[in-house]
Amino acid sequence: MKQEKGYSVRTDLALEAHEMNVKNDPSSSDSDGVEVLEKEVHDIKTTYVTVDQAGAERIGKKAGHYITLESQAIRKQDTELQVNLAKVVSGQLRKVLSDSGIKESDRCLIVGLGNHLVTPDALGPLVTEKVLVTSHLFELQPETVQEGYRPVSAVTPGVMGLTGIETSDMVHGIIEETKPDFVIVIDALASRSINRINATIQLSDTGIHPGSGVGNKRKEISKETYGIPVISIGVPTVVDAVTITSDTIDYVLKHFGREWKEKDSPSQALSPALNPFERKTLTEEDHPTDEQSQAVLGMFGQLEEAEKKQLIKEVLTPLGHNLMVTPKEVDTFINDMAHVIASGINGALHPGVEDGEAQSYSR
Amino acid sequence: MKQEKGYSVRTDLALEAHEMNVKNDPSSSDSDGVEVLEKEVHDIKTTYVTVDQAGAERIGKKAGHYITLESQAIRKQDTELQVNLAKVVSGQLRKVLSDSGIKESDRCLIVGLGNHLVTPDALGPLVTEKVLVTSHLFELQPETVQEGYRPVSAVTPGVMGLTGIETSDMVHGIIEETKPDFVIVIDALASRSINRINATIQLSDTGIHPGSGVGNKRKEISKETYGIPVISIGVPTVVDAVTITSDTIDYVLKHFGREWKEKDSPSQALSPALNPFERKTLTEEDHPTDEQSQAVLGMFGQLEEAEKKQLIKEVLTPLGHNLMVTPKEVDTFINDMAHVIASGINGALHPGVEDGEAQSYSR
Amino acid sequence: MKQEKGYSVRTDLALEAHEMNVKNDPSSSDSDGVEVLEKEVHDIKTTYVTVDQAGAERIGKKAGHYITLESQAIRKQDTELQVNLAKVVSGQLRKVLSDSGIKESDRCLIVGLGNHLVTPDALGPLVTEKVLVTSHLFELQPETVQEGYRPVSAVTPGVMGLTGIETSDMVHGIIEETKPDFVIVIDALASRSINRINATIQLSDTGIHPGSGVGNKRKEISKETYGIPVISIGVPTVVDAVTITSDTIDYVLKHFGREWKEKDSPSQALSPALNPFERKTLTEEDHPTDEQSQAVLGMFGQLEEAEKKQLIKEVLTPLGHNLMVTPKEVDTFINDMAHVIASGINGALHPGVEDGEAQSYSR
Amino acid sequence: MKQEKGYSVRTDLALEAHEMNVKNDPSSSDSDGVEVLEKEVHDIKTTYVTVDQAGAERIGKKAGHYITLESQAIRKQDTELQVNLAKVVSGQLRKVLSDSGIKESDRCLIVGLGNHLVTPDALGPLVTEKVLVTSHLFELQPETVQEGYRPVSAVTPGVMGLTGIETSDMVHGIIEETKPDFVIVIDALASRSINRINATIQLSDTGIHPGSGVGNKRKEISKETYGIPVISIGVPTVVDAVTITSDTIDYVLKHFGREWKEKDSPSQALSPALNPFERKTLTEEDHPTDEQSQAVLGMFGQLEEAEKKQLIKEVLTPLGHNLMVTPKEVDTFINDMAHVIASGINGALHPGVEDGEAQSYSR
Repeated sequence: MKQEKGYSVRTDLALEAHEMNVKNDPSSSDSDGVEVLEKEVHDIKTTYVTVDQAGAERIGKKAGHYITLESQAIRKQDTELQVNLAKVVSGQLRKVLSDSGIKESDRCLIVGLGNHLVTPDALGPLVTEKVLVTSHLFELQPETVQEGYRPVSAVTPGVMGLTGIETSDMVHGIIEETKPDFVIVIDALASRSINRINATIQLSDTGIHPGSGVGNKRKEISKETYGIPVISIGVPTVVDAVTITSDTIDYVLKHFGREWKEKDSPSQALSPALNPFERKTLTEEDHPTDEQSQAVLGMFGQLEEAEKKQLIKEVLTPLGHNLMVTPKEVDTFINDMAHVIASGINGALHPGVEDGEAQSYSR
Repeated sequence: MKQEKGYSVRTDLALEAHEMNVKNDPSSSDSDGVEVLEKEVHDIKTTYVTVDQAGAERIGKKAGHYITLESQAIRKQDTELQVNLAKVVSGQLRKVLSDSGIKESDRCLIVGLGNHLVTPDALGPLVTEKVLVTSHLFELQPETVQEGYRPVSAVTPGVMGLTGIETSDMVHGIIEETKPDFVIVIDALASRSINRINATIQLSDTGIHPGSGVGNKRKEISKETYGIPVISIGVPTVVDAVTITSDTIDYVLKHFGREWKEKDSPSQALSPALNPFERKTLTEEDHPTDEQSQAVLGMFGQLEEAEKKQLIKEVLTPLGHNLMVTPKEVDTFINDMAHVIASGINGALHPGVEDGEAQSYSR
Repeated sequence: MKQEKGYSVRTDLALEAHEMNVKNDPSSSDSDGVEVLEKEVHDIKTTYVTVDQAGAERIGKKAGHYITLESQAIRKQDTELQVNLAKVVSGQLRKVLSDSGIKESDRCLIVGLGNHLVTPDALGPLVTEKVLVTSHLFELQPETVQEGYRPVSAVTPGVMGLTGIETSDMVHGIIEETKPDFVIVIDALASRSINRINATIQLSDTGIHPGSGVGNKRKEISKETYGIPVISIGVPTVVDAVTITSDTIDYVLKHFGREWKEKDSPSQALSPALNPFERKTLTEEDHPTDEQSQAVLGMFGQLEEAEKKQLIKEVLTPLGHNLMVTPKEVDTFINDMAHVIASGINGALHPGVEDGEAQSYSR
Repeated sequence: MKQEKGYSVRTDLALEAHEMNVKNDPSSSDSDGVEVLEKEVHDIKTTYVTVDQAGAERIGKKAGHYITLESQAIRKQDTELQVNLAKVVSGQLRKVLSDSGIKESDRCLIVGLGNHLVTPDALGPLVTEKVLVTSHLFELQPETVQEGYRPVSAVTPGVMGLTGIETSDMVHGIIEETKPDFVIVIDALASRSINRINATIQLSDTGIHPGSGVGNKRKEISKETYGIPVISIGVPTVVDAVTITSDTIDYVLKHFGREWKEKDSPSQALSPALNPFERKTLTEEDHPTDEQSQAVLGMFGQLEEAEKKQLIKEVLTPLGHNLMVTPKEVDTFINDMAHVIASGINGALHPGVEDGEAQSYSR
């Protein structure tokens, strides 16, 4: 792939990897090793992506199952939507556990990756603070543990810059010592797309690669490295200036593409843009033709996404301006997202925690 | 002005307002009411902008004096540079006070604007936490106050969303009650340019307009409203996606412009780009010709800055993607900047605080 | 009074002042200007103390109404009890407002006293962060305000050590400028008794004296100083070593007193001490006779409370050991208490906030 | 020992254990297995306690070396004294390392015990945040590491209530995985004496027992359990009401004891109490005779310390009033102490860090 020499369009989200692949090679389809199913309930869009070995090679993501939840609950600071989102996280996580052959009594280790001193990277540590921890009760006061709970531990290994230790090594040492039956690992991700920040949650049975998004040679946290199932929960919380620019230019192109199409269309009067209460969306189909792209954006408009990003990166990086940024409301967003995920985990791990109460179990 | 109907290119920085004006109307010059002086010492660039009444109308900034300090001390997390920057803040602030007719014994009220719960907006509250406060000692234990100190108070009025009260009204009430001789007000600003975030400090004798950058109808904090000198210290800490994209596109154009020029130039061998230790910079002179701009960026490349921003804004806003963002390292950046500014204020207000010690007086 | 020359047994709680008075002069009774009513519902003990002018002189508290709520909800970290406590705060506060002639549409200013950087003193600032603020909506977007809400503002004036300004002056300036109809002021108090820390809430229509507990000459915040009703909410959060010691010695005496009585009593078999599930309590009636006191504690056992405290203070203070302390769990206790009080205030001020929902309105 | 059945007078400080032993059995002396050396420089008192096997049995502390530093630097919030204290920590720690046979290039693991959410227990986590961490640089970028530095890692294992995992197990897992040559472990302790809170630092080569002070059955962190040297740094940050009362009663007795003695002494005119600038201290020699004790404090005055504490505990505990408390200024005290210890560790571990600069290396 061209981009290998240039800007890495690598993404932690399988859904994005698949979409990029389809975009670059429109002839490819689900039958080529990637299966995609979508549903949308109560403003939450859920996408199931299943990747087999062939698909893994094509889209550059490990074979396995990926579930992507998309919701504006956090960015809209809508408490009711957040309660619903937590329930969906809970339900989907329960399904992932069950599909991974994990039993109701299996012992869980929750690992919150990230740096608690850097707010947009503090999601993992905040989730471990908020989940219901029970292992020590099973060990020391088994008589106090009610039906419907399982042994759960939670650790916050920190980041290598603060500990001096490879994160995956630290987790390995803890697993070797405490012998859990499976691991749930939570991490903040770099986003490949401006619209996913704090708006997407990916559950997967493939584990994760800490820091992989930013070019570090850290080691994998997965079933392959630890020998037990590793379920990952990832949320994009930061994005770089290259991505913001590239995304925006893409939106500009689609904007013109749609305008040109609508000019020829009698339905313009019903265009969503005229309804002030409905948020406009632009889709791949709005992309203009190559000629139109060139007219609007010249040579730049004709570049592939990867080429475009590579060019922007080459310009911004030596200037010191390829900042990694996060929304201004980062303190609230990260705290709310941690609450949603912790509630979801509590509900999924302990049948004794009713869906309706999962929230209040989250500290 | 065209932009009045569209994207506000209004900026809190007089230097930027002046640059935009010159760019849009290259025939205008300093003699038209704006006087600009520059100097650079120890990696800190200081620009003095003096605006008279005629200039005020031309560039849309109040008549008065503006001093802009530019430094990478915070973004590079370089402690030594930060100590130097604090000394420069101190020296320049002392000059502004003296030019405003403020005497060494005059009583000062420091006002830290912003929301302490939103990290990129917490600069003002953090500075008031860190400055040296003495008014109560002058009042209650005058015998304990040494030579070289003046009465200083410091308040954090909060933001209207948390207090329910117009910030300028709250400050007015406190001034009426405590009768200071002058005010220093600190605020985090929205930046108009990606390279200024946490890298620019503006001192001014014109006061400020809380929230003016984001279209709120809050009232002015200035000599006109309070009847006493109001010195403002502002630092850009956030930027929106429109600005990031527009800035980046501009860098791309200049990048090509420079490349084209250098192709014809024998001096290419000495180009800074070849020195890996020197950060590349691009200047206005690198802008390509109109034909070149069109080739590279089509129709888009020929838009004025304001038009370009207006277009991008029209596309991003209905999508919900014109995020206001801040660098990922926001926690460290804001804390370090608050320390620099508090040290600078301590040194400027109290001759008894030696430059070398101003740092340690900042809590 | 003896204690005037010695250890101040002054207390911010009227209930304590009354109890001390009765203890020192058992012949005094309610009919002498202090009326006391008690009730206990759901583990929350509510005491109404009404002080008239004669009573004010006798117990050293301003004439007015005082409501004391006693509950272990915070110290036991019992969420359910805390929800109940918030409802009781809400109901009692509603009564105080109504008795003070405050109408449902009257405009409220909430003042959170204390230092947000000192956790046990951060109760006031935390409450102002958590209450529902609406004044700006009534002013700027009146169409968005539903029935059942009133205009409420909230400010955090800080402490004189951080601002350099007398707190009551700052509040006065804000009141002059914003003209509220009444004030609710929240403050953390020094406790006179170990068992009240984070376990007592006092509502009163007499206002409060910031810092009065620690001998500072700060000014009053009350109807007398501001001309509008000032409702105060106070919670003891710290205690000094003198008080801990004095209280404990008192408990030791009562412990022996009870033991001696029980020796002669056939009911010993039913003594609460034998029921391990019931927390023991000791009452004034358990106090031993003077002879017994001397046998147990010598000369010390015969001192009046004020003399005892004065002696302990004379010994500890020059040693630097009269520490002001707070329970180890201070972070949780203060945060939970702020949540309870903010929920109570929201429910009392806005009929539109249902009791059941008041909690979720607290941020 | 009597106290075994009653109030545990067990202490984490060897110096205290020794003092208690001498007090209970005045015939015992250093030659019986405990060697004590004292020196005082610049307001910092340093005591070296060496315990051999015989001494270990007598005082109930493990055989080994204990260094106790006593200073008011933190409680007086005196920055200059704190800088000096950090230098003394550094020097003494260097000595302990050298005496333990640790070489300059040996790899260190720093373990910060405690709960970062409970301020008085957050000392360990704060120190690990502040120390200079280098292991990853030695591993990944060895060319960037200068002379005078050694590989140092730092972990914050958390507390069992938050992780569900026995702390010593977690540390064991990390040691097994990362194979350091020695460990430095930092912990906040419960104090046995009101005057030690935030005023004493104990260095030791015997390791520590997490939570041992509060009766938990956690496992030891020591050379015996891990097979490599474990240096411990402990600071008393909390104290219970029993101790405060018992200490205070003891001070009262000594106060009277001294007064009686001084009455008969011609030197009264030179008594320190007359010098208002010198803080009074009371010593063991001030204790009154048994008859005097009985006169002052009756039966109570004649109890042994352990009996007294046991009695107070029996009275307070069933009442729910044996609170564990910390000074009101806990936020500042813990942060300053963490800074002092982190600076001391940096200076001791890395000869490349000059004493004068150790402070600025602490983040």
